[in-house]
Amino acid sequence: MTHSPPFAFSIAATDGAARTGTIGMARGDIRTPAFMPVGTAATVKAMRPAEVRASGADIILGNTYHLMLRPGAERIARLGGLHAFMAWDRPILTDSGGYQVMSLSDLAKVTEDGVSFKSHLDGARHMITPERSIEIQRLLGSDIVMAFDELVRTDSSREAQAAAMERSMRWARRSREAFDTIDTGLPRGAIFGIQQGALDEGLRRASADALTAIGFDGYAIGGLAVGEGQEAMFGVLDYAPGQLPADAPRYLMGVGKPDDIVGAVLRGVDMFDCVLPTRSGRNGQAFTWGGPVNIRNARHAEDQAPLDARCNCPVCTTWSRAYLHHLVKSGEMLGAMLMTQHNLHFYQALMQALRDAIAQARIGEFARSFVADYRGG
Amino acid sequence: MTHSPPFAFSIAATDGAARTGTIGMARGDIRTPAFMPVGTAATVKAMRPAEVRASGADIILGNTYHLMLRPGAERIARLGGLHAFMAWDRPILTDSGGYQVMSLSDLAKVTEDGVSFKSHLDGARHMITPERSIEIQRLLGSDIVMAFDELVRTDSSREAQAAAMERSMRWARRSREAFDTIDTGLPRGAIFGIQQGALDEGLRRASADALTAIGFDGYAIGGLAVGEGQEAMFGVLDYAPGQLPADAPRYLMGVGKPDDIVGAVLRGVDMFDCVLPTRSGRNGQAFTWGGPVNIRNARHAEDQAPLDARCNCPVCTTWSRAYLHHLVKSGEMLGAMLMTQHNLHFYQALMQALRDAIAQARIGEFARSFVADYRGG
Ligand SMILES: [Zn+2]
Ligand SMILES: [Zn+2]
Repeated sequence: MTHSPPFAFSIAATDGAARTGTIGMARGDIRTPAFMPVGTAATVKAMRPAEVRASGADIILGNTYHLMLRPGAERIARLGGLHAFMAWDRPILTDSGGYQVMSLSDLAKVTEDGVSFKSHLDGARHMITPERSIEIQRLLGSDIVMAFDELVRTDSSREAQAAAMERSMRWARRSREAFDTIDTGLPRGAIFGIQQGALDEGLRRASADALTAIGFDGYAIGGLAVGEGQEAMFGVLDYAPGQLPADAPRYLMGVGKPDDIVGAVLRGVDMFDCVLPTRSGRNGQAFTWGGPVNIRNARHAEDQAPLDARCNCPVCTTWSRAYLHHLVKSGEMLGAMLMTQHNLHFYQALMQALRDAIAQARIGEFARSFVADYRGG
Repeated sequence: MTHSPPFAFSIAATDGAARTGTIGMARGDIRTPAFMPVGTAATVKAMRPAEVRASGADIILGNTYHLMLRPGAERIARLGGLHAFMAWDRPILTDSGGYQVMSLSDLAKVTEDGVSFKSHLDGARHMITPERSIEIQRLLGSDIVMAFDELVRTDSSREAQAAAMERSMRWARRSREAFDTIDTGLPRGAIFGIQQGALDEGLRRASADALTAIGFDGYAIGGLAVGEGQEAMFGVLDYAPGQLPADAPRYLMGVGKPDDIVGAVLRGVDMFDCVLPTRSGRNGQAFTWGGPVNIRNARHAEDQAPLDARCNCPVCTTWSRAYLHHLVKSGEMLGAMLMTQHNLHFYQALMQALRDAIAQARIGEFARSFVADYRGG
C-alpha cells in the first residue's frame, strides 16, 4: 500500500470487528470512528466553522460537483484553497463528484473517458474525467481526495453492476496516477479508493482486490445507502469491510441514520458522512438519544424541556422545545441554525460514545442499549 | 415625571444638542446613544443572543404585534416571559403594536377604543386597545413598554394629523394608567410615551406638553422615518427633541440609515431601532465606514479583502468578500448570518464612536468626517 505522508492510521483498540483509533494528518488528528459533517458549497449549512468544530468534528466533507460549478475550483485555488476560503483549518475530505454528477446534473453521459453533463445551475456543459476530478480536488486543497467512480443502481443487472465496478477500478487507477502527478501548489494529502459491486459479494471481493493492488491510503465502501434498505446494507457490511485492508481506514459513504452508523461501526467501518443531521435540522427534525423528534409537532408548543435531556450541547442547555417549536413554525433562520447545531452535537456525541465503548470492549452492549433507547423513544 | 424604578438615566457629557450617558435598569445598563437591534419574533433574525450581545448591543426590541399573534403573549408569559423564552437576559424594549397593526394587518379599523384588525398570518380577528397593548407588553416581561398610539401618514391633512395626535395623547394616558395597574407577575420596568404631530412644530409641541403632563420614563419621537425623507426628518429633529424633557431619554423610532442616526444624535436623540442592519444583511447589503456594499456585485468574486478593513468584527477578521459573495450568491444561510453579524457590529461600533465623540466634545467634527467617508465610499 502506498501511503501519502502525512497520513498515519493507528488502531488503539478493537472489539469484535469494531475498531477505534486515530488518523494523523498535517491539519489535525481524526478520531475514528469519525462522522464528517457535509459542507457541500464551502459551508456546513447554517453553521460557522467554529461551531462545527465545537460540536466535536475533526474533519468535514466538501463536494467536488457543487464547488466546480460555483464558485469554481480554479477560483478557490486562486483564493488560497478551500480551507482558507471557508476558514476551516482542519482536514477536509472531498468526494469525487461521481455521485452528484449522476444524481443532480442533467443529461449525464458516461463514456470510458468520464462523464459529460449539464450543470443543474445554468445548464452549461461540463466534463469530469478521473483526471479532472482529482485536479479539482487538488485545486481545492483537499486533505483526503476520493477516486472518481461510476455509480449504478443496486437494482440494475449483475452484468451492468460488474461493468460499472470494472470501469470504476480502471478509473481508480487513473485517479491514483493523477493524484501522484498533478501539482497544484497546494499540499498533497491522501487518496482513498472506492469499492463498488452493489450487493454482490463476489463483485465486492474483486473490487477490493483491484483497489488493494493499486494501493490507497484508505478505502471507501461505495454504492450503498442508495435506497437498498438497512438490512441489505448490513448484509454487505457483514463481509465488505473484511475484504479491505485491516490497517487502513474504511469509509462508508453517505451513511447515515444513527442506527445505521452504530450497525456499521459494529461491522468494522471507521468513517461516515451524511447530510441527515444538517438537512433534517433545517426541516425541523432533531436526533436524540430517545429517537427522532419532529419539533413542529403541536405537543412541543409549551414544552419547557430541552430537545434532549441527555445532550449537553449549547442548544439543549439554553433553549426549550417550546422556543425551537416557535422558531421552526415561524420559519426563523435561528430555528434551522439551532436544530442543525444540536444534531451535529448529537452525531458527534454518538461517535464519542462508540469510540469509548470500543475502547472499553463493550460495543455489543452499547449497540443493543442504544438501539433500544433510540427506537423506543 | 413619574419614574418607575429601577430606571436611572444619567447624562455623562453633552456636546451641543448631543448627549451621552447611561440608562441604568435592573437587567443591565444601556449606553446612550444606543442602537437596539430588532428581534421581531423573539429572535434577532439569524443571530444567537450571545452574538447580538457580542456585537455590543445593550438592549433589543421585540414586536408586540408579531408576538401576540405567534406564539401569543399569554403563552410567552406561561413560559416565563420573553427573556427566558429567547434566552436574552438584558433589557428588552417592546413596541406597542400600533405601527405594525396599521402597516401589516388587514382591514384595520380605528375607533376611540382601539384598533381592530385581521391577522396577516391566519386572518383571525383581533383587537388592540391601549390597555391590551400594555397588558401584552407586561405579559412579555418587557423592560421598556411603549404607549399605544395611532399612526397617520405625514402627507395627510393637518386636521387628520391633529386628530390622530390628540387621540394618541388620550391613549397615552390610558397606557400609563394600564401600566401602573396591570400586574402580570413579571417585573415592571419603565414606560415611554410617544410624541406625534407629523411634520408640524405646533402639533409636536402640543404632543410633548401632553406627554410631559402625564409623565413618562422616556419619550419617543414617533411618526418619522415613514417616507418623508432625511431632510424633512432632520427638520423635525431640529426642534422636537428640545420639546421633550432634557432629563429623560429620547427615542427616535424606526431610524435608520447610519447617516440618519448620526444626524439625529447631533440633534439630541438618545435611542434608535431599525431593521436595516438585519434585513439588509439578509439581502446581501453590508454597511461599512466607506458606505454601503452590495456583496452580490461581481467585482467581489475574487476580492480577498474583508467587508470593511476598519471593522474588527468576527466576520471581517475571518472571511473575505469573495467568500461572502459566494455564500450570498449561493443562497447559503451562512451568508445571511455573517452579513447580519457584521452589520450589527458596524452599527454598534458607530454608536460607540458617537458616544466617544460626544464625551470628547468633537461630535461635529466626527459627524462631518463620518458623512464624508460614508458618502464618498
Ligand atoms: Zn443538544
Ligand atoms: Zn465586520
